[in-house]
Amino acid sequence: MIKVSVFYANREGMRFDMNYYCEKHMPLVRRLCDAAVKGIAVEQGTSGGEPGSAPQFLAMGHIYFETVDAYRTAIGPHLNEILADIPNYTNIQPTIQISEVKI
Amino acid sequence: MIKVSVFYANREGMRFDMNYYCEKHMPLVRRLCDAAVKGIAVEQGTSGGEPGSAPQFLAMGHIYFETVDAYRTAIGPHLNEILADIPNYTNIQPTIQISEVKI
Repeated sequence: MIKVSVFYANREGMRFDMNYYCEKHMPLVRRLCDAAVKGIAVEQGTSGGEPGSAPQFLAMGHIYFETVDAYRTAIGPHLNEILADIPNYTNIQPTIQISEVKI
Repeated sequence: MIKVSVFYANREGMRFDMNYYCEKHMPLVRRLCDAAVKGIAVEQGTSGGEPGSAPQFLAMGHIYFETVDAYRTAIGPHLNEILADIPNYTNIQPTIQISEVKI
């Protein structure tokens, strides 16, 4: 199983509409990628390790696929539609990481 | 539910023993924090969004707790023991983020 993580860095002046992300954007991704999506997770950053410190990421979204090939095949035809939706919920330029799920 | 994410940044010369992390370190954390731990996840970074690009993080570990208070209460008495185990699997200074699980 692989996990595609999308990180939204926490910097001054950045906005992120968590309701839109959870209720519109992630369902859009799930619908477009359909059965290839094995799971979805979303988190909102609250702090760093120290109480009251700033979190590194304002938000993180994760989508699970069986393989990297399954991910690229599923997302490829819909990438433009997914990217075009980003300004509807954030002005952050996200970074993406693909990871292998170990546990 | 909250998620405590531990990020191991991917920089040159860094080592990370994934077997030790999965088979020794995470079980240690789970044993010490006991019933407060609601779930554990571990991923190994394989790439960024572009094929062949470097992942931002070599590894990520995540531990789920009901609340931030439950996390601090559970980890507090054992923090030194947990920190002392880190050099056994990596020379990376990890960063921590606490997030609220939305989905």
